[in-house]
Amino acid sequence: MAEIDRPARRVGRPRTAVLTRDLIAHAALRLLDESGADGFTMARLAQALRVRPSALYNHVEGKEDVIAAVRELVSDRIDVSAFQTEPWDTAMFVWARSYRVAFAAHPPTIALLATLPLTGALRTMRMYEVVVAAMVRAGWPEGDVLPTLVAVESFVLGSALDAIAPADMFDPSGVEEEVPAFASAYGARSAALGEVAPADAAFETGLQAMLDGLRARFARLTAAAG
Amino acid sequence: MAEIDRPARRVGRPRTAVLTRDLIAHAALRLLDESGADGFTMARLAQALRVRPSALYNHVEGKEDVIAAVRELVSDRIDVSAFQTEPWDTAMFVWARSYRVAFAAHPPTIALLATLPLTGALRTMRMYEVVVAAMVRAGWPEGDVLPTLVAVESFVLGSALDAIAPADMFDPSGVEEEVPAFASAYGARSAALGEVAPADAAFETGLQAMLDGLRARFARLTAAAG
Repeated sequence: MAEIDRPARRVGRPRTAVLTRDLIAHAALRLLDESGADGFTMARLAQALRVRPSALYNHVEGKEDVIAAVRELVSDRIDVSAFQTEPWDTAMFVWARSYRVAFAAHPPTIALLATLPLTGALRTMRMYEVVVAAMVRAGWPEGDVLPTLVAVESFVLGSALDAIAPADMFDPSGVEEEVPAFASAYGARSAALGEVAPADAAFETGLQAMLDGLRARFARLTAAAG
Repeated sequence: MAEIDRPARRVGRPRTAVLTRDLIAHAALRLLDESGADGFTMARLAQALRVRPSALYNHVEGKEDVIAAVRELVSDRIDVSAFQTEPWDTAMFVWARSYRVAFAAHPPTIALLATLPLTGALRTMRMYEVVVAAMVRAGWPEGDVLPTLVAVESFVLGSALDAIAPADMFDPSGVEEEVPAFASAYGARSAALGEVAPADAAFETGLQAMLDGLRARFARLTAAAG
């Protein structure tokens, strides 16, 4: 309890929970969601946890380590279970869908985590381990595994950005005459989708196309090797 | 010239250029690149241009309009020319590659522009107009055009994030024994790629797979319609 900032506690207020790496990660994710990636500092994190900044360093090595812990929290929600029981391509649909949902729930993490090293995020590494091991078992040439996995991941993260965009982001109201084909396709999409969210339709279209293409690539690669 | 902040100019310094929407957009893009999206304000933009904030409003309607002008600047670099001369799928390769380069050159714009409406970005709308018109001419059902285009775009934007990530972001050094399949695939990728950047390999793998899948989808859709 030495690290708790006692003077900040009001009399009668329940004792602040003992600081742990996991508690810090949860607070950091909340702070990121509220303030965005650019405003994230160890000082603000300490403030949010009502502790002195120095107290954080008993549990994490610094800002990069906090980001690693946040990455683990977010990637805990990614479902890799199907890689243990289903063919690689079926499992990849499940993986990609849960991956998009996990990141779309925390918009500022998308660009942040896509552009920082995985160092220190062992649970995230283990998530990848399950995917990679299943792909190698299925017969993917080892040198193709990461480029393939990263390709699907890039599509998922771009789709997570699209999922948090306003549904009418392409609305051509007022300039229909300048962009007639675009305006017409915008209207046709609404008619075709009905209640389906545009971002969901684009994601499922793209995921299906990419997996179809990857199945064909897998068939070519394994035929060449066999 | 009434809007120029004369007191801020040093004697002998060349006259500041007359403020225009385009000049504001260039300064805004520079400011975004330097300070990130969260730190972008009209006050800072005015400061960067050495004018009073009120002077900006003679040329742009506000922050959203500045972002629209930035979107136009970035999308000016996207090459849609092939849609006038090549089949839709060939043109989409050219479009996607130039699109990724345009956004990877300005990292903070990726998540920002992916999640804001296009309102006011007429040159960007015209870029889409070329793509949509070519897809409709080729025979894509109109209701499928935007979901397909957005799917490719999501892949491109996710790949732009990957392009600005460190090349060794997946480096498993120190935890190889915890994630043996992953560590082995990481080594195999390096061996397979040689001098090719990992992000380029993942992008080309994914783009080829997605376009292969979309070609197959196009064939199914047009066969069903015919």
